[in-house]
Parts: sequence; C-alpha cells; structure tokens
Amino acid sequence: MSVDPRYGTGRSVTLPGPLRLDGGVLLSPVDIGYETYGTLAPDGGNAILVCHALTGDQHVASEHPRTGKPGWWTRMVGPGKPIDTDRYFVICSNVLGSCLGSSGPATINPATAKPWGMSFPVITIRDMVRAQAMLLDHLGVDKLFAVVGGSMGGMQALSWAATFPERVASAVVIASAARHSAQNIAFHEVGRQAVMADPKWRGGDYYEDNDPPVAGLAVARMAAHITYLSEAGLTAKFGRKLQSRETKTFGFDADFQVESYLRHQGLAFVDRFDANSYLYITRALDYFDLAEEHGGLLANAFKGADTRFCVVSFDTDWLYPTSESRSVVHALNAAGARASFVELKSPFGHDAFLLESPELDRVVRGFLQAGVA
Amino acid sequence: MSVDPRYGTGRSVTLPGPLRLDGGVLLSPVDIGYETYGTLAPDGGNAILVCHALTGDQHVASEHPRTGKPGWWTRMVGPGKPIDTDRYFVICSNVLGSCLGSSGPATINPATAKPWGMSFPVITIRDMVRAQAMLLDHLGVDKLFAVVGGSMGGMQALSWAATFPERVASAVVIASAARHSAQNIAFHEVGRQAVMADPKWRGGDYYEDNDPPVAGLAVARMAAHITYLSEAGLTAKFGRKLQSRETKTFGFDADFQVESYLRHQGLAFVDRFDANSYLYITRALDYFDLAEEHGGLLANAFKGADTRFCVVSFDTDWLYPTSESRSVVHALNAAGARASFVELKSPFGHDAFLLESPELDRVVRGFLQAGVA
Repeated sequence: MSVDPRYGTGRSVTLPGPLRLDGGVLLSPVDIGYETYGTLAPDGGNAILVCHALTGDQHVASEHPRTGKPGWWTRMVGPGKPIDTDRYFVICSNVLGSCLGSSGPATINPATAKPWGMSFPVITIRDMVRAQAMLLDHLGVDKLFAVVGGSMGGMQALSWAATFPERVASAVVIASAARHSAQNIAFHEVGRQAVMADPKWRGGDYYEDNDPPVAGLAVARMAAHITYLSEAGLTAKFGRKLQSRETKTFGFDADFQVESYLRHQGLAFVDRFDANSYLYITRALDYFDLAEEHGGLLANAFKGADTRFCVVSFDTDWLYPTSESRSVVHALNAAGARASFVELKSPFGHDAFLLESPELDRVVRGFLQAGVA
Repeated sequence: MSVDPRYGTGRSVTLPGPLRLDGGVLLSPVDIGYETYGTLAPDGGNAILVCHALTGDQHVASEHPRTGKPGWWTRMVGPGKPIDTDRYFVICSNVLGSCLGSSGPATINPATAKPWGMSFPVITIRDMVRAQAMLLDHLGVDKLFAVVGGSMGGMQALSWAATFPERVASAVVIASAARHSAQNIAFHEVGRQAVMADPKWRGGDYYEDNDPPVAGLAVARMAAHITYLSEAGLTAKFGRKLQSRETKTFGFDADFQVESYLRHQGLAFVDRFDANSYLYITRALDYFDLAEEHGGLLANAFKGADTRFCVVSFDTDWLYPTSESRSVVHALNAAGARASFVELKSPFGHDAFLLESPELDRVVRGFLQAGVA
C-alpha cells in the first residue's frame, strides 16, 4: 500500500453476501480485490468506476504486484490525466471470477476448504457488476459520477447503466459491444478447448500440485491475441520479417518475428493468469447479450435512464467493430438516452484503447468535464 | 479403382528422384498419390492440373477413401462441369508433405525403415510444384492446358507459372495470394503450437504407438476454421443460437451452436489428417513469398511468360483478401502477362471457393473455353 492515495492503495475486502448470481447460485462470501486512487468528495459525487477487460485487473494506474509492470491504463488514469485522480475518486476492482483477489475458481470454497476449481458457479457480466455494486456499498459510494471501460469493461459499463440506472450518472463505453457475436464465441471456444485439451488441466483441479495447464493456456492466449490486433497493424509491425537470422532455417523454430512475438505473448500470460479464470471469464463474455436480458430489445435496457453515454469505437477493431458500437448507439437513441458516439482512427485494432491515442484522451476528458462533479 | 476413368482412378507412384528441395535436401524416392479423370488427348494438349488446398487431397471428384465423402470439388470437376472431364484430362495429386499417398512425415524414411516424423525435410510450395512436374513427366504430360487451384492450390498455380512457364498455357488462381501475411503466419503458428503442446505429439514420433496428438490437432483445426468463414457468414448461420436447449446451461458444454459446430470440425479433421503433415504444410505456406523468390519484385516471377492468368477473389474472404489478389494482378500487368481479374460476391468468406458459386463456375468455364485445347 502506497502512502499517497493518488498512486493506488491495493486492497481487498470480504463481503458476507450472499450474491445471487444469474445462474441461480447464491455466492457467499464474496471477495473483491480492488484499488482506489484519489479521494472521495464529502458529497460522494466524484467517484468513477473503471472496469477492466478480460485479462485485466484492478491495477489500472499502479504497479502490478506479480509482473512489476506499470498499471494498464496509466495514460488515462492519474494526476492530471483524462480520468484525473486529483479530481475524481477512482475505483477499479478485479472482476468476479478472475484471479487477482476476487472470488473465482482459484479461491477457496468455504464448504470444502479447497479451491473451487470448476465447481465455482458460472458467472455473467451482470454478476460482475452486482459484485462491484456491493463493493460500492462497502466504500460508501451511492452513485457513480461515471463508469468507464474498454472491451469487456465497456460491457460492464453498459450493464451498470442497465442494471443500476439510478447509480450511474454517465457511462463511457470504448471498443465494446452489447453482445458477443458468433465469431467472438468461436474464438473463445478455441481458447477454452486449448486449455481443456491440456492434460494438466485435469478438470480444473490443478491447484494443489501447483502444475497448471500453461501450455494450453498459452495457445489460448496466442489465438486471442491475434484478434486484438489489426491485419494492417501486424503487417506494419512485423510483416514477413525474419528473426535475427538472415535466411529461413527450414525448421520449426520461430523463424518469423511475428511467431516469436506471439509465443512471448503466450508465455508471459501464463505467469500472471489462472487457466480456470480464463474459462470462466470467456464464458461470461460469450453469455453477454444485453438485449436478451431485456426482452430481446436493446433499447429496453436503457428506457427511462438519466445516464449520459459516450460510445467510442476504433476503425480497425475487428473483434468489436464499429458496427457493434453503432447498434448500441441506435438503441440508446431509441430509448431517448443522451448519447455521443465517435469512431476513432487507429492502425492498432482492438488494442487501440490501451495504447497511445490522444484522440481517445480528448474524448474521455471532454465527456467527463461536461458532467458536473 | 473405378472402371470409368471419368470418375477417378486412385493411384500412386514411386519416382526415383532425387528431388532437390528448396531447403537443400535431396529427397529420394518421391512418392506421389494422385488421381486422374478423363483421357489424355493424343497430342497431350488437354491436361489440367488441379491443385488442392492445405488439408485437401487428390480426390477432387471422387470418393475420399477414408471418409467415404464425395470429392471436394465435384461441382467444378466432372463430366459437363466447368472443368469438364469429358473434354480434359484432369490430374490432381496429393501435395508433398501431406498424408494421402505422397511422401511426407508419415511415410517411411528408407534410410531408417521408420516413419520420417520431424526428420522429414521442410518443404516449400515450389517443392510441391517440382514434385508435380515429376508426376507429369511420368504421365507423359509435357505442357499443361491449365493449372487450377484455390487457396494453397492457387499458390501452386502461381508457382507453376513462375517455375515452369513453358509448361503452363494458363493458370486459374482462386481465393489466394502470392505470399503469406503476418496475420496468416500468426494463425498458423497458433495451430502448430497447439499440436506441439499436446504431450502425445512427442516430437513427432507418435506413429508406432498409433496414439497421435488428436487433441492439439483438433484445436489447431478449430482456430484455422474460423479464418475460413466470414463474420457475417457465421452470424447468418449460427448467430447466438443455442443448442437444442431452450436456455443457457451455465456450464462449459457447447451451449451455442457455433461451439458444437467448431468442435465437430476439429474432431472430424483428426480422423483424416496427420498432425505432422499439418505442421509441414502450414510451414510451406508461411514460407511462401513468390516475390522473394524473384529478387523481391513479384512482376519478375512472370516476366516473359506466355501463360494466360485468371485471378478470382471473394469479397468476404479475410484470410486471402481481394487486396492480395489485386497485388498479383498488378504484378501480372507489370510483367505484360495476359490476366483477367474478378472479385465475386459471397457471404461465405474464404470457403466460398469450395461452395456453390455459379459465378465462379461461369468464370472458370469461360476462361478455359477461351483457351485452345
């Protein structure tokens, strides 16, 4: 825990629950790992919840405890940044089902005193949001000035606005969608099958031997990573460039730079992420269909809400393409909600929301400043 | 072997070689599994070589011996079809490195009397073409009326025209490219890592125990299969439709139809294909860069050639998008070659070339009829 609260105070809390999950299970207790930055205003009106993506975590603007790397969104969150921790009280919590301090398959099931493994209940994006609402209750935050997220974080932001409209003044939804497409599901299914095909997965019971299915998880990460980048971005960064060698080796080592890059992505990932958590969170994403939760009509999710929305897409994002954001905006318009929408140019595909993007900074800063905090 | 040669005569031949491979190895002998349909004209002028794709085979218009399924291009090749076996002598051979009768990792290395496994030399698209040329010598075919192929088959057609221009009167290149992009390589690397991560792969030495790495190979196939389909096609065919159940199971079974479809694709594939062959052929594809073989300028590959070209792409193909075909056509134009080019509409992505496409039929039929046979 650092001294200056602007730079992050890593914490976790065990809430008694129970939390009723969409699958019908009552989860209790509910552990939540989280970080906060900045100070809650006396009137409680300056709280911003930042929601992380599939393999993200609560260390949005502070060092990751396992990897020692800087926070994953330090260009967006911090003193003087668009989400200004001198001004706002920023909360980021590890999602339910993940592995950085929140309840998930790697945590202990109190009924058995052993890790849950695959007996952990299947969760949804809305369940993640409900757990976050419990955390806000614990922190004394009644209403959010804003909820902000990219990718899966954007889905949580949408789910927040739909589930607790009275607790959300504004929502920023970046590079996201209101449902997972067939292609999205297909890529996730490949990843899950890669994990489950690894004999070390053993039905999810690998914790006690500390011998997790890293090979399968690395393959899953490699496949997913391709979807985070654009074809043009890959070509610009790697093209057909060979490794340090001058010529092809006529073998199966990583001859091309893009091969060794992908292998590195796979190997680095398994050091910081739990394979079962990967199964659970991809499942939550695949189950996400906000319209389905509201009688099949997405506009119903936002009827009567007073929340302001800012929707942002990137032109080369083929994982959650602009067309998905446009569908969200159409639904918001149909519901009479206040919504702004912008498609930004970037060569970096879906990952653009995590990378240097002055335009995104400007959009987020301007949208937040237009609110009253 | 069937009686009527129009319906395929499954054969194989062992040629003494040696075949000098691009990697420098001399391969000897060279086994080639092949099929022919129709009858070679007395002047030898009606031969068409059909080249198959990554996991294809020589059974272009006749039953597959392992699966019992019809040939993979019966709508294109046969009596009265665009590639008319009443008129043309059609040859299709299993590519070098594959597993349907041609030399590859699953065949016997005469030096050890054991399967080659990963000691089989790494091969290239041009090596495949050189082996096909040896087969044509054996069959007494001096010059091809046409070489025709889709996907990797189209790469072979391009390589044929570049390597043996005097032996190719015309070339039909469908849904293909003159080089593998970084994204293409990335997807193949995921597949290879999935195979190699399977403990049953055992460095490629799994033949004697007859216990191949089917789990890893199935994952590889699933990942690749997504790239063969368009996002829109997947949405139209599956969307978010659930299996026979009414509601989500909140579990990890195949809840969505697209999941069980993909799982089926993976499982069906491992019954008919060798995992090591998958490694070798994906490697050959990744190494393919026709410009690189010709001093870095694609047009050089076709300089002075008298071959007529027909290049076809599909608008929803994101594996080998239209831009790749356009690059080929630009190079052909720069080389002064006769080339026609058409982009066809299809919802089916890369797989369109294998599916019902009356426009493709018309293009191929018309192009062949415009030649002199």
